Amino acid sequence: MTDRIQLTPIGLLHTPFAHPRNLPIQSCFAPDVEGRIELYPAYINGLRDLEEFSHLILIYHFHRSPRTELVGRPFLENREHGIFAIRSPHRPNHLGLSVVRLLSIKPGILTFSGADMLDQTPLLDIKPYVSYFDHPPEVKNGWLDKHFRNGIPPENTRS
Amino acid sequence: MTDRIQLTPIGLLHTPFAHPRNLPIQSCFAPDVEGRIELYPAYINGLRDLEEFSHLILIYHFHRSPRTELVGRPFLENREHGIFAIRSPHRPNHLGLSVVRLLSIKPGILTFSGADMLDQTPLLDIKPYVSYFDHPPEVKNGWLDKHFRNGIPPENTRS
Repeated sequence: MTDRIQLTPIGLLHTPFAHPRNLPIQSCFAPDVEGRIELYPAYINGLRDLEEFSHLILIYHFHRSPRTELVGRPFLENREHGIFAIRSPHRPNHLGLSVVRLLSIKPGILTFSGADMLDQTPLLDIKPYVSYFDHPPEVKNGWLDKHFRNGIPPENTRS
Repeated sequence: MTDRIQLTPIGLLHTPFAHPRNLPIQSCFAPDVEGRIELYPAYINGLRDLEEFSHLILIYHFHRSPRTELVGRPFLENREHGIFAIRSPHRPNHLGLSVVRLLSIKPGILTFSGADMLDQTPLLDIKPYVSYFDHPPEVKNGWLDKHFRNGIPPENTRS
């Protein structure tokens, strides 16, 4: 089954990053960088009670990625890993995911911190981050664990 | 901007749940239920080094949802919340997300526990779960916190 699935953006992400070269590698490396969701008017009624959550899962389209790769070399590494073992934008279907901290909600505009995506990124979904669902105990982080001594991000990821 | 985005499934999810009425509400309520990813042959080279991770983020298509709602009443609640404050399948773009535990990888077949999606669900992406990226500290879980005393799932979610 390879049926195509059509998605329509529900809004746009506004961030300080006009170009990939300035982008934080991940949201956790840019905890204070603010972004803004412009939610299209048709979806505003879907926000009810979202303000009671501290964090959001944003699913968006890596709209500036020009290609699909099956392996890639992450910033922190000298060697390649499979595309499903890294968070590269150059992946099949070009779906991006970030966990961000919700700061405020006004009708149609949500502000958040932890922005790590390009300005003008098309937003596909907002889900509430639920620690009971989304935070498994005893996680092994593959090739990443060696880069985080005691959970501290590596030197070259800090701004 | 409401440009359409076309996605193509990278595989199929096989689970014990042929019908929505038997489905666990979330992966965390069905930690021992096993599922299987059938990854289409074109993508198998993307799995390199994924076996070093304990958990995966699966993004899939809620292919059996016949409608889009802006508010919904979750199983645990008597009142409605906005669609972006709940994890209902009846959401714009019908994107589903589950954090599951990886059990084994053979070429083209991945087994996992925590299956909470329907059998034959089209898979759109696999990402490595990375606690440094995906587990924020000090989470407020909105309307859900009152249902989880000391982090224990409510009685009516346990099988």
